[in-house]
Amino acid sequence: MGKPEIAKLGYVALVTADLEKSLYFFREVIGLEVTEEVDGVYYLRAWGDFQHHTLSLEQGDRGYVRHIGWRTKSKEDVLLFKNNLEQASVDVEFIEAWDTPGIGEAIRFKLPSQHTFELYFDITRPEVEEHRKSVLKNQTYKSWAKGISPRRFDHVNIHTSTDVDQTYSFLENVLGFKMREFLRDDDGSVLAGWMSVTPLVHDVAVLSKPNLPTPARLHHISYWTDDSQDILRAADILRENGIEFIGPGKHGITQAMYLYVMDPGSGCRVELFTGGYLIFEPDWEPIEWTMKERAIGNTYWGDSVQDKEANKITIEA
Amino acid sequence: MGKPEIAKLGYVALVTADLEKSLYFFREVIGLEVTEEVDGVYYLRAWGDFQHHTLSLEQGDRGYVRHIGWRTKSKEDVLLFKNNLEQASVDVEFIEAWDTPGIGEAIRFKLPSQHTFELYFDITRPEVEEHRKSVLKNQTYKSWAKGISPRRFDHVNIHTSTDVDQTYSFLENVLGFKMREFLRDDDGSVLAGWMSVTPLVHDVAVLSKPNLPTPARLHHISYWTDDSQDILRAADILRENGIEFIGPGKHGITQAMYLYVMDPGSGCRVELFTGGYLIFEPDWEPIEWTMKERAIGNTYWGDSVQDKEANKITIEA
Amino acid sequence: MGKPEIAKLGYVALVTADLEKSLYFFREVIGLEVTEEVDGVYYLRAWGDFQHHTLSLEQGDRGYVRHIGWRTKSKEDVLLFKNNLEQASVDVEFIEAWDTPGIGEAIRFKLPSQHTFELYFDITRPEVEEHRKSVLKNQTYKSWAKGISPRRFDHVNIHTSTDVDQTYSFLENVLGFKMREFLRDDDGSVLAGWMSVTPLVHDVAVLSKPNLPTPARLHHISYWTDDSQDILRAADILRENGIEFIGPGKHGITQAMYLYVMDPGSGCRVELFTGGYLIFEPDWEPIEWTMKERAIGNTYWGDSVQDKEANKITIEA
Amino acid sequence: MGKPEIAKLGYVALVTADLEKSLYFFREVIGLEVTEEVDGVYYLRAWGDFQHHTLSLEQGDRGYVRHIGWRTKSKEDVLLFKNNLEQASVDVEFIEAWDTPGIGEAIRFKLPSQHTFELYFDITRPEVEEHRKSVLKNQTYKSWAKGISPRRFDHVNIHTSTDVDQTYSFLENVLGFKMREFLRDDDGSVLAGWMSVTPLVHDVAVLSKPNLPTPARLHHISYWTDDSQDILRAADILRENGIEFIGPGKHGITQAMYLYVMDPGSGCRVELFTGGYLIFEPDWEPIEWTMKERAIGNTYWGDSVQDKEANKITIEA
Repeated sequence: MGKPEIAKLGYVALVTADLEKSLYFFREVIGLEVTEEVDGVYYLRAWGDFQHHTLSLEQGDRGYVRHIGWRTKSKEDVLLFKNNLEQASVDVEFIEAWDTPGIGEAIRFKLPSQHTFELYFDITRPEVEEHRKSVLKNQTYKSWAKGISPRRFDHVNIHTSTDVDQTYSFLENVLGFKMREFLRDDDGSVLAGWMSVTPLVHDVAVLSKPNLPTPARLHHISYWTDDSQDILRAADILRENGIEFIGPGKHGITQAMYLYVMDPGSGCRVELFTGGYLIFEPDWEPIEWTMKERAIGNTYWGDSVQDKEANKITIEA
Repeated sequence: MGKPEIAKLGYVALVTADLEKSLYFFREVIGLEVTEEVDGVYYLRAWGDFQHHTLSLEQGDRGYVRHIGWRTKSKEDVLLFKNNLEQASVDVEFIEAWDTPGIGEAIRFKLPSQHTFELYFDITRPEVEEHRKSVLKNQTYKSWAKGISPRRFDHVNIHTSTDVDQTYSFLENVLGFKMREFLRDDDGSVLAGWMSVTPLVHDVAVLSKPNLPTPARLHHISYWTDDSQDILRAADILRENGIEFIGPGKHGITQAMYLYVMDPGSGCRVELFTGGYLIFEPDWEPIEWTMKERAIGNTYWGDSVQDKEANKITIEA
Repeated sequence: MGKPEIAKLGYVALVTADLEKSLYFFREVIGLEVTEEVDGVYYLRAWGDFQHHTLSLEQGDRGYVRHIGWRTKSKEDVLLFKNNLEQASVDVEFIEAWDTPGIGEAIRFKLPSQHTFELYFDITRPEVEEHRKSVLKNQTYKSWAKGISPRRFDHVNIHTSTDVDQTYSFLENVLGFKMREFLRDDDGSVLAGWMSVTPLVHDVAVLSKPNLPTPARLHHISYWTDDSQDILRAADILRENGIEFIGPGKHGITQAMYLYVMDPGSGCRVELFTGGYLIFEPDWEPIEWTMKERAIGNTYWGDSVQDKEANKITIEA
Repeated sequence: MGKPEIAKLGYVALVTADLEKSLYFFREVIGLEVTEEVDGVYYLRAWGDFQHHTLSLEQGDRGYVRHIGWRTKSKEDVLLFKNNLEQASVDVEFIEAWDTPGIGEAIRFKLPSQHTFELYFDITRPEVEEHRKSVLKNQTYKSWAKGISPRRFDHVNIHTSTDVDQTYSFLENVLGFKMREFLRDDDGSVLAGWMSVTPLVHDVAVLSKPNLPTPARLHHISYWTDDSQDILRAADILRENGIEFIGPGKHGITQAMYLYVMDPGSGCRVELFTGGYLIFEPDWEPIEWTMKERAIGNTYWGDSVQDKEANKITIEA
């Protein structure tokens, strides 16, 4: 029996303190589409996302991330991962098929970082209503229908106050992620790692942050636009909506253009993101950035992400 | 022992009737970098390509493609593929390591389409001279140094007058490609297939063309730019150089923006390419395009690629 | 007393056979804003237009252009032009102030081409409602609120079956336009002229077309976008709306990027337009294009505007 | 006899402490073309500039601006301005025709701000060598030949420690500039004014800076690119060349996208600039920005221009 594998980042289950505000933000400003609403939970995705949802939004007493879902390469992989995790003494919760609308049988567990990951394979690909459907057969919804209008869900960036090396090791050895780029502190420890199961430079970034209010935090979720021009247009749209943001700028690490904006309902930060590069080499040597190179790694050019107070706010995850 | 896998498209070995013209075209107009020249053969790559070369150029009596190289996921995969191919009664040529500069041990064989593929794993990643090296640690050369300046090699598009189904089947069953999109003729046969081993919509497109001068032809090799603006700038640059092209436009199939231009030395067509989408879903259902949908599939908008005489010229492969 | 001068193109008064369709097209697809509706006439402008309207839309039995309005440099210029025109034996109609909502006292008259021009100076600059107002003090409405969202009105392109030289001469000598670029037929006659009173390459283009259903036709009105990327996005938006268009491409003459789309209500063609160049030289020598150079003059690259059946349809003006 | 008028900003005569460095910067990095070199002075322009030069570069003991040239609307205007200036008790220096290569008879004088302006009408439009000439008849050089490759010269930004109101008044009353936007201090005084003779929002900006090393300083000269994408590409190019800059970002005032970079030879700052808007209204009301609105006026979004040490360095003018 083969080694189970993760195919891709799936979705983030987000709880918001103000559902109305969050819906306005994600639908009208970011421009995501609502696949459906079930029992007060809204399931959203971008026009180029293919599966049921890449974000769920529900009302809660405060904003936090319930869990982060990942799709496996096959149905069998879900249970294979379950076995592997249990052999590694990780507590695994089994989720019945379709308990989460659109999502088949799944497992949930905590990383050493204390973030909850979900693994599933089955996910529905619901039919789109005629008037929202793209004229392109290989695209879900009409593009550019509203707001910033990114193409697809891209990655998550999480922070932990636990020993981050355990999480890198867990992601690599148990879940099959590869380290693509990392930032090393002067004392030799790794402060941040960009890791992926796909050729994207990262599906997840994990940062060590010793002084957090809770061990597991989320810095941002990210949606991808096709062109860097789209990021500039996003900046215009956000200004016209009176919503603060950081960016635009370009990271040295990942080479991606960015703009960071916070959902006013949940406090969840969204990165609008484009450019970057793909890693197809099977023997990729992780790129090491030193503290001296950190400034250019964080901000190759543009509005700096570093040392901004607004950049330090994160939600529980 | 696992199933061998191809990681990525590697390079095209191109023979040209006029090396000087081809070098001018690929270096000054397209803006590729020369890694090195060995025994009259030039090894080139884009500023964002990571390995030794993605194109080799050598003088010959006419322009043609010697072979198309693909990198495997591991060193063992080369010999595993050799076994599998021989068991499938395919003639396999073994190439000693470093016979091709930069490339370790490799095998070559013909597809049913009569195109020669090479598989290798080992490839050098030569050091770049200080003044050509990017200031970014995750990038090979300085970007925008000259000409159109695409980021990386993307895919190849090949034509065959043989029964194309045999090639689709060979690519799927022997080499592990997945069909992503295809064009079906009114009689039910498949006329064109876009296939990949990576999340790119295609690493290779194979088209059935019954009336070719030789069974195996190459329609184009493709280099990728980051932004659609770069394709418009490419159009300006080509006009200023007095070089004809088709495009810019946007394909429905693959959703990519394109511009086609021919190397005046070899007759090899180059597609400058951006946009498109990535397929991370492990259970992707190939998108079927009918003849009625073909026009929009070929040209979603812009300068049409269809029915252009210039578009019919292909080189032997 | 000085010579009266025209400051700028003002607006087009458009009659449509289907007001609902036209309103949908101009508001939802093009993304113009409605300043106000008075007696069934809608007054529209782009988010970066400063005056009351740049387009008026009213229901009629067929689509046609009632007149084309131009703003003079001063209030006195309106009557000075009236005198000059009458001395040149041109019939002049005087329009009472505010007969047209937003427009002060005006005069109307026919060019030799049989197109009706209006000259006015006074025009209101109505306050914008808080929720539609841009956060920028130097911009009228929020940008990117809907659809293609061009910045401002740019120019008009008119056709005539009369002797076009009389119109060039009238525009130059009576109205103060300067010829910027022109296309000369092999027999020495001028087939098309791009003329302006501003540093724009053209505020109006006048083409000689011998076989028209009526002497005065309008080929298109044009709205300007900031970036060429916006024209590509426009192409996507139009495809998603199932609306045919010609382009995108780049003209050699004027150097502008273009896309042509027809209002399904009135049959009035709209050019979405960017790039181009500005003429600040007071002694500009008109650029002459020969018939041999016409192809590149019309279409420097991209989807050709020439010989397209759809391109030949024009409305009465 | 009519009132003399200025048609456009013409050129800046720049002295550099390191001619070789400045030439490298303006030719290879910015991508200007050299029209000619006469007696050690280099005359440069962008590919879309129409006249002899928009920048001259000569070796000196330090970097400073010798004068700023403006083209009048007619030949007569030069002497008319001379009369007007002398009547206003301004010292005027007469420059013989062709003393400055390419420039006919001219006058020079000091503004109240102590900046030297030159007015001329005659300027040659030299033939371009075949291999550098654009294929477009309405364009000077081939575009995109090297480096950032802006289209044309746009404006100058000057600082003075003198009473700035005298300069605004001089520019308006003697030279015919119009105030387009201005920044008012809390005490009612004007700190910065953006003024133009053309529909550009500004041909010149004049800022009040009480504590300057000499009364007249130049903050930057500006070259214009067609697309905002070009500004992002410029940022990449500058990073690869190891040259520091401020930006990219977007001004609220003028609405233009910007990037500021300093010529390492002369210390003259160059703004790469696109977007913005045009003012065709003859009765434009200057836009007033208060100190409270200053932040958004300076930096609508992006890398802030304010409070940057590097931004405070200016050269003598």
